[in-house]
Amino acid sequence: MSVLTLNCPVPVAVRDQVMLGHGSGGKLSAEMMREIFLPAFSNETLARLDDQAVVNIGGSRIAFTTDSFVVKPLFFPGGDIGSLAVHGTVNDLAMGGAKPLFLSVAFIIEEGLSMEILRRVVASLGRAAEACGVQVVTGDTKVVDKGSGDGVFINTTGIGVVPDGLFLSASQARAGDAIILSGSIGDHGIAILAEREGIEFESPVVSDSAPLHELVADMLRSSNAIRCLRDPTRGGVSSALNEIATQAHVGMLLQEESIPVRDEVRGACEMLGLDPLYVANEGKLLAIVDPSDTDRLVAVMRANPLGRAARRIGTVTKSDPGWVTMRTVFGTTRIVDMLAGDQLPRIC
Amino acid sequence: MSVLTLNCPVPVAVRDQVMLGHGSGGKLSAEMMREIFLPAFSNETLARLDDQAVVNIGGSRIAFTTDSFVVKPLFFPGGDIGSLAVHGTVNDLAMGGAKPLFLSVAFIIEEGLSMEILRRVVASLGRAAEACGVQVVTGDTKVVDKGSGDGVFINTTGIGVVPDGLFLSASQARAGDAIILSGSIGDHGIAILAEREGIEFESPVVSDSAPLHELVADMLRSSNAIRCLRDPTRGGVSSALNEIATQAHVGMLLQEESIPVRDEVRGACEMLGLDPLYVANEGKLLAIVDPSDTDRLVAVMRANPLGRAARRIGTVTKSDPGWVTMRTVFGTTRIVDMLAGDQLPRIC
Repeated sequence: MSVLTLNCPVPVAVRDQVMLGHGSGGKLSAEMMREIFLPAFSNETLARLDDQAVVNIGGSRIAFTTDSFVVKPLFFPGGDIGSLAVHGTVNDLAMGGAKPLFLSVAFIIEEGLSMEILRRVVASLGRAAEACGVQVVTGDTKVVDKGSGDGVFINTTGIGVVPDGLFLSASQARAGDAIILSGSIGDHGIAILAEREGIEFESPVVSDSAPLHELVADMLRSSNAIRCLRDPTRGGVSSALNEIATQAHVGMLLQEESIPVRDEVRGACEMLGLDPLYVANEGKLLAIVDPSDTDRLVAVMRANPLGRAARRIGTVTKSDPGWVTMRTVFGTTRIVDMLAGDQLPRIC
Repeated sequence: MSVLTLNCPVPVAVRDQVMLGHGSGGKLSAEMMREIFLPAFSNETLARLDDQAVVNIGGSRIAFTTDSFVVKPLFFPGGDIGSLAVHGTVNDLAMGGAKPLFLSVAFIIEEGLSMEILRRVVASLGRAAEACGVQVVTGDTKVVDKGSGDGVFINTTGIGVVPDGLFLSASQARAGDAIILSGSIGDHGIAILAEREGIEFESPVVSDSAPLHELVADMLRSSNAIRCLRDPTRGGVSSALNEIATQAHVGMLLQEESIPVRDEVRGACEMLGLDPLYVANEGKLLAIVDPSDTDRLVAVMRANPLGRAARRIGTVTKSDPGWVTMRTVFGTTRIVDMLAGDQLPRIC
């Protein structure tokens, strides 16, 4: 199962073609960003490489973010491509501290898709948007011939407003900061994988897909000490933290025993040879915060149903800038590198 | 060649699946919008069904529009999917009178796409954005497995600012208004079709793909009498005018002899059994304007290279609300219905 090759080295000669790993959110994605996209679109806002752009229009700070969703299968325990397309974009806005306001939705449908499936996806998307308090105000539909797509792909692009004076960005992280995680990791990726490969567990694994903007609002209301927020989606916790470490030129040291992983997820990962640190989440966030505010912030997060298992998982360090390391449960230290290959394609 | 079936009646039983015609911008697209999308996302802004939403943020009127591009082939005379993805979204913003400011760009790439082709597409997109004065500030890349996509699909979503006091909308059209067209029709659709099917002409047909925001700025600077602008892309002039007629509950009467069609395009259409009124354009606009300003506005448009062949092509009528009719060159009158089937799939 090529799906499960973890950190496989990629022969350089193959890189004259796009590979699945280029969409993994790991090393190959970063390489493609650096070599193909950044040179063509160079500007300061894009170069910050946050999950959302923040632009100034008429005195308002507008957050703007886009995501395409190609998850397979379309329906999975805990959600579907429609609800995921809302949560993913709402969360990218929330990670910039923005209040999500409006969404555009664009469908690329493969000829022959059942109208009933489309109706279910669209209805789910509509319900998720309503639950998040965001309006779908514009859209587009394209149809491609059979065999040129795969059921339906959805792009959602969101705009929101960032409060005055708030500036969350990966570049803000500094040595001594605490790293807080909002809950258990790996649920989304394992739920998708199990559904796709027909793997059954004693207690089923359900995606954590959820909108985090209210959790973020609670956090921002109670603390001025948040430097940066990131939702560890594709590429998991490891890739999100590596991106921050690179952007801010800092190191990070994690404590393995403090990182919550559900028993079913841990079991599935062991069976399949996966590392939960690389598995996607769709309803979790990482916060980099001034250490003085850690306890208060963790308490605030735990009061929200989506942050019940929040805890500090590590520290930003001055040493090893650009690297994430982890003190394991065995007392050893290992490097937590960015995902190199394609662990789980089409996870979102 | 199913590609060329024009206005084919669609058996109702087939509509439990999505067909290529649902992406045509014609009757089936409108039906899908009405039956699947509008019920799920109901809100006032979306219900206006303009090419862009205009929302109010902090006192600014922000135009917001999304489009996915699935054109086949990726490169064609006069452009490529990269430049088209910029022009299409810039034009949707411009049709609302907005100054285009920022773009998001999201790629869905099929595994195995040549990195060199991707590089060319991305570079072209970057050049087009720069030429339009818009910044690509955020993006996303997904990779799907071979056979689940087709090279590359691109979503661009744009935001711009609408000047105070300006309200262009299809619903504004009223009886007596003049209908102005900025130039010859059918160039984009025929260029794509010729490239795709390997049809050669004595003088090659080149796509009209171009950004119209400066032409629109010229027009708005010189006239307060513009009710609505529309770029006749998928579904062509016929679908754009039918949409306005439906939204504004007005009729429209066109003069066939006043509608400019290049000789090569007319010849290709005759040979292939196509009606230029249904063929896509990517650098033309329709303006509905108070009749008193027609001559001045046409003169202003002709002074811009993208409006050199501008002329009045018809009149908005009180009679036949919801219908577009045309006085033919033979002196007869015919109904110009919305596109019913799929004339040219994957044209944009």
